[in-house]
Amino acid sequence: MVEIAVMGHGVVGSGVVEVLTTHRESIARRAQEEIGIKYILDLRDFPDSPYADKFTKNFEDIVNDPEVRVVVEVMGGLRPAFEYVCRCMEAGKSVVTSNKELVATKGAELLKIARDHNVNFLFEASVGGGIPIIRPLHQCLAANDVIEIAGILNGTTNFILTKMIRESMSFEDALALAQKLGYAERNPAADVEGHDACRKICILASLAYGKHVYPEQVHTEGITDITLADVEYAENWGGVIKLIGQVKKQTSGKLQIIVCPMFVPAESQLSSVDDVFNGILVRGDATGDVVFYGKGAGKLPTASAVVADVIDCVKHFSSRKYLFWEDGSKDYVEDYMEDCVSMYVRASAADVNLSLLNAGTIFGGVTRLIRRDATADEFAFVTEKMPEKEISQKLKELTALGVQVQNTIRLGDF
Amino acid sequence: MVEIAVMGHGVVGSGVVEVLTTHRESIARRAQEEIGIKYILDLRDFPDSPYADKFTKNFEDIVNDPEVRVVVEVMGGLRPAFEYVCRCMEAGKSVVTSNKELVATKGAELLKIARDHNVNFLFEASVGGGIPIIRPLHQCLAANDVIEIAGILNGTTNFILTKMIRESMSFEDALALAQKLGYAERNPAADVEGHDACRKICILASLAYGKHVYPEQVHTEGITDITLADVEYAENWGGVIKLIGQVKKQTSGKLQIIVCPMFVPAESQLSSVDDVFNGILVRGDATGDVVFYGKGAGKLPTASAVVADVIDCVKHFSSRKYLFWEDGSKDYVEDYMEDCVSMYVRASAADVNLSLLNAGTIFGGVTRLIRRDATADEFAFVTEKMPEKEISQKLKELTALGVQVQNTIRLGDF
Repeated sequence: MVEIAVMGHGVVGSGVVEVLTTHRESIARRAQEEIGIKYILDLRDFPDSPYADKFTKNFEDIVNDPEVRVVVEVMGGLRPAFEYVCRCMEAGKSVVTSNKELVATKGAELLKIARDHNVNFLFEASVGGGIPIIRPLHQCLAANDVIEIAGILNGTTNFILTKMIRESMSFEDALALAQKLGYAERNPAADVEGHDACRKICILASLAYGKHVYPEQVHTEGITDITLADVEYAENWGGVIKLIGQVKKQTSGKLQIIVCPMFVPAESQLSSVDDVFNGILVRGDATGDVVFYGKGAGKLPTASAVVADVIDCVKHFSSRKYLFWEDGSKDYVEDYMEDCVSMYVRASAADVNLSLLNAGTIFGGVTRLIRRDATADEFAFVTEKMPEKEISQKLKELTALGVQVQNTIRLGDF
Repeated sequence: MVEIAVMGHGVVGSGVVEVLTTHRESIARRAQEEIGIKYILDLRDFPDSPYADKFTKNFEDIVNDPEVRVVVEVMGGLRPAFEYVCRCMEAGKSVVTSNKELVATKGAELLKIARDHNVNFLFEASVGGGIPIIRPLHQCLAANDVIEIAGILNGTTNFILTKMIRESMSFEDALALAQKLGYAERNPAADVEGHDACRKICILASLAYGKHVYPEQVHTEGITDITLADVEYAENWGGVIKLIGQVKKQTSGKLQIIVCPMFVPAESQLSSVDDVFNGILVRGDATGDVVFYGKGAGKLPTASAVVADVIDCVKHFSSRKYLFWEDGSKDYVEDYMEDCVSMYVRASAADVNLSLLNAGTIFGGVTRLIRRDATADEFAFVTEKMPEKEISQKLKELTALGVQVQNTIRLGDF
């Protein structure tokens, strides 16, 4: 029997307890050990829980108990999660977490502590919920150079965009529906402004390229500026708008990494990832494109990923799993203004035809997009591929000629 | 330095050598050991190969060399692969294979030998080429009950069906094109008659449910009877025809497992898996639907999966990976005639309207499908869900009323 502790009894934490209980037998078979929950840490009271006798409000009970060999951290946030996780590993316990903020901001540091104390620090559930992605990326693609990762990493924004695309719902209405259904928080900023997706692409990039990328290094745009007009233009272009986290390694060794809405071509496997689902495309030099698809969040999917990590810890007390990346550095990420992209531009002007002519001249040719209900002063086009700073400069020239740029969205190339 | 041997220098074998050479550094970093190729076994001569000094025609060189700790078997077929693999493991060497025939027919036996000799027997490349599926299914979904697996497991047939669907090419023309492009063998039976897909679903089913399913236990139909009329009716129904390998565990403990063409609804993630790509849907009780997508074959994708297994072996000399299933049994698979399905039926009759009325009466209601270029005596319908033996019986009744059944295809429910 291996004793574990679960820190946090919210949605994921209670799911972990549930999965460990309902799948006790098959888990014991696979782990080759029974797994028992000795403590559940939460400041709240759960007097009616069948696990009432396991609850504690005192972290010291867990860290000082030598019987506890694996600790699950599902509290979320950095405080006190970071301190607790450090102390558990320093005390010789392996840690499993679903906390993407913790991994995205402190991953390199925590992996080093794990290595120094010969314990495991695993975080499959931090990206993609129940979708296996961390382990396949690390193990199965070991014999590949990862050329690119592009993913729909946030289910809430994907639900909102799907409603806008499929049912012509406005952003505001779709957000309200997502909140009503429990897919979005009352304060939806972390989702709709792209911060959640940013943390996840940071984790994937750090793992794929072996060096930490911090969220503040990643240019991040959300979906709050997307309108139904943009959705219609995307359709006319031949695709859909998705919030994408993307990373590529350049020949210089620097990373190109961004989180923003993109036009995704209908042929792309990511274009059919709808509702609260996530999809992650990994482009390897040997494997070609591999896509992982599933529910990116939710109690049981996330809990089952946590429990799979717990099983892995139990199977690897003797030989630590080699999962590591080094500290990041300030100049590791290329300024996104240097990235070469094609851009969709929606704009308005008194003279649309003249403005399109001007756009063509300034950009060296553009492709016009149309939509049925465009107002008389509205137009849209996509540019050729060029460094984003050039696009920015050229849009200023266009503005000087009486054009108001309403929105710009990058075109995906995957 | 860990020495390995590669048995077979065909497409995959030469790919393994290539990946090990081109990715030498990153592989050494991940395996925490350099991996060297000591022998390449092939009966043919490769005098111009840069690895000419490593070739041997004598298996005994490999099995008797204690320096060789991992053997890669990429010869294919059962003879002499089975004997060689047994002898390598009995000599204390771990084995990695891409040989689906070997795993599908001898898996339980080989896993037992591996366990008895405390070595690893790994076969990630045997299903889905470069798509990570064996390891995610085994590890990441450990905390799930697998409700169902449904997959497009054969790239050749998927290419043919895609050409029929997208370009209205006939089966014969699409097959000829596949052969021209090197996607299909000169003798395409193993692919187009479903045997290759059958082996793969056997491996997935054996792993998911812990007990061997043998190919001869699985009712297997290929795609040779699919016509463009069927493709059009599928479109009218709202989907596409795909060759599917599917397994479910029933409450009785018996497996429902089949390989056959199915109507796949357009909403299904599998409907957009086109060309030579594979897609595998795993439905877990906790994770919900997870889909793995990528190239199911090809030199480098398959080789990279083999090499990932080699790395895993090297990392786990001390602690064997627990991957196991027990022997199968004769009554483990339910007679497919007991399965409940909805069926598409294409038929002809002198009086189409009367025949449709009769079909409605016999089946207790059917849904008619239409297509533009149907001949005057042609009609098609789908039935409600019922045991397949009932459908078979009712089709006999219909035949007795002057109807010729031309083709039947099951409807997928995933």
